[in-house]
Amino acid sequence: MNPNALQKLGYGMYIIGSRKGDRLNGQVANTVFQITSEPPTVAVSINKKNLTNEFIKDSRVFTASVLRQATPLSFIGQFGFKSGRDIDKLKGINYKIGETKAPIILDNAVAYLEAEVTNDIDVGTHTIFIGKIVNAEIITEDECLTYEYYHQVKRGTTPKTAPSYIAEKKGGSN
Amino acid sequence: MNPNALQKLGYGMYIIGSRKGDRLNGQVANTVFQITSEPPTVAVSINKKNLTNEFIKDSRVFTASVLRQATPLSFIGQFGFKSGRDIDKLKGINYKIGETKAPIILDNAVAYLEAEVTNDIDVGTHTIFIGKIVNAEIITEDECLTYEYYHQVKRGTTPKTAPSYIAEKKGGSN
Repeated sequence: MNPNALQKLGYGMYIIGSRKGDRLNGQVANTVFQITSEPPTVAVSINKKNLTNEFIKDSRVFTASVLRQATPLSFIGQFGFKSGRDIDKLKGINYKIGETKAPIILDNAVAYLEAEVTNDIDVGTHTIFIGKIVNAEIITEDECLTYEYYHQVKRGTTPKTAPSYIAEKKGGSN
Repeated sequence: MNPNALQKLGYGMYIIGSRKGDRLNGQVANTVFQITSEPPTVAVSINKKNLTNEFIKDSRVFTASVLRQATPLSFIGQFGFKSGRDIDKLKGINYKIGETKAPIILDNAVAYLEAEVTNDIDVGTHTIFIGKIVNAEIITEDECLTYEYYHQVKRGTTPKTAPSYIAEKKGGSN
């Protein structure tokens, strides 16, 4: 078994927004995917340790902003490697409050969607939230950021709480 | 709401293999994604109308072969727009029987994985199968086919049974 084979799976990259009452938060995720077309339904996998997981469980809503290829690493770092428990992640970020009252991140976004959670599935370290889409818009026709591009071209890294984290071997060549 | 916003979600493209007793089948899918890293777990969304859905429910195993960018449309057509109820989809195809005894399609594959189903979730038209990975290998370092590339460069189309199908508007310009 070669665990690096899993890195061949293809993903986009997203900022997931949610709220708990009036508190807002967002985080990077790569596992957003449509699961049915009628009605339009999406799923997202979020680590249980993340504040966004707690917020989605509380409010039962989330947003997903599709990132463009030109998204700076610093932007991804703010949403992917820091916790909303320590900083206000939306400080200095261009966003709007959606129909779900959750924040929709607009900086570096190609498109966005909003969803109301209809089901959540405990899968060990993560929760899969399944949501009915209540709003979706395209912002620009810029090229989307793929997970592969982020790793290969941008030399981006993956936090340990991501579903796709693979422990680096000491002295490994990968 | 602009349903085309959902086309901005990023995916790879895969052939999902499964079996029912000694009967083998495979189909194209775009929604394969890792959901936890410890243990390595993947999920796949398969339409209930598809023979592969019936096979996975019966055998509780599936394989996923990650397709390379150079995959011909005719190959995708064989696995994506025809049913294993009508034809033997593996006829003339290079594959091997994996540890799960399900077929692993090798033609046009960059990498593959095998999984044992631990949970399946009814999401209306589709079933999400969650599987623990029991085998995974890289075959080549060729570039992977993305769903976006398939649509934009190859001008590929999507069958009605896909989770990501969007009905074309009559006379629409998209």
